[in-house]
Amino acid sequence: VSAPHTDPHVDAPHEGWTPLPPREALGLAPSFVSGDPQGQRLRVAYFVRDEDAHVVGRVWFGPLAEGPPGHAHGGSIAAVLDELMGSAAWLAGHRVVAVKLDVEFKKAIRLGTTATFAARVTSSEGRKIVVTSEMFLPDGALAATGHGTFLVIDMERLLKGELSKG
Amino acid sequence: VSAPHTDPHVDAPHEGWTPLPPREALGLAPSFVSGDPQGQRLRVAYFVRDEDAHVVGRVWFGPLAEGPPGHAHGGSIAAVLDELMGSAAWLAGHRVVAVKLDVEFKKAIRLGTTATFAARVTSSEGRKIVVTSEMFLPDGALAATGHGTFLVIDMERLLKGELSKG
Repeated sequence: VSAPHTDPHVDAPHEGWTPLPPREALGLAPSFVSGDPQGQRLRVAYFVRDEDAHVVGRVWFGPLAEGPPGHAHGGSIAAVLDELMGSAAWLAGHRVVAVKLDVEFKKAIRLGTTATFAARVTSSEGRKIVVTSEMFLPDGALAATGHGTFLVIDMERLLKGELSKG
Repeated sequence: VSAPHTDPHVDAPHEGWTPLPPREALGLAPSFVSGDPQGQRLRVAYFVRDEDAHVVGRVWFGPLAEGPPGHAHGGSIAAVLDELMGSAAWLAGHRVVAVKLDVEFKKAIRLGTTATFAARVTSSEGRKIVVTSEMFLPDGALAATGHGTFLVIDMERLLKGELSKG
């Protein structure tokens, strides 16, 4: 199985897309998904699409993102969609954590692929925020869909380690 | 936020648990989840529980598995449950890939925690295999649950990159 190492340029400029500030700019530590932007696992870049304010972007699945031979791990796809949907909720002004994540894998993604993605908040009732997302292959085929349910949390409590979502 | 680096001993022997052979022993490359066993992200060990043949084990969430400040990324939890459930399906004799993954996050998991987990195949009809899983905090509290739907695939086709799960 070949393990492509081509430079994915996930953060290349795109007409009508404005880069989201990185976690570090918000005082956060590197994340499980986007914390290794030069590594061989996942390289992710998030943008805001000007026309609808949805969070969109690109992810490159490197040779260390493997699940089935030669293909992206389902868990790596789920992890990207989780972070993407959380970002969409935060961008919409909700300080949330995920309580439920549902992912459907429609097409296998070969290692070395740079996929694109998009997410939008679909409902917001009290503390509960629901987000929907899609990931696409370079040819436009739908590779995966995600649905996330998030709860607005008290960040002070979270930072003190008092979080309970039960 | 402290980032504990204590040795988690995820692969320490456990009465009544038999280690699963690593992916490498099956001729597979390191995976997204379990491919960095000395790293600071995830350290995972899988066992078969002798009494019921369920796949069980331990996962340590290191400082680079962060999502919310000081806590494991929801995507890291989902990724571990995805691989765990796939392993349970394979151990039961099914060569599968995931088509659907549903995870509920019940309790936040602090970085530095060694959690335990268990999975079992709950149904098998034709090509469709359903697996259920749980992850527990050290005090026994339920941290997350997973449900996975898998499809039996033709490995020859997968290795040729012909996989389509749609």
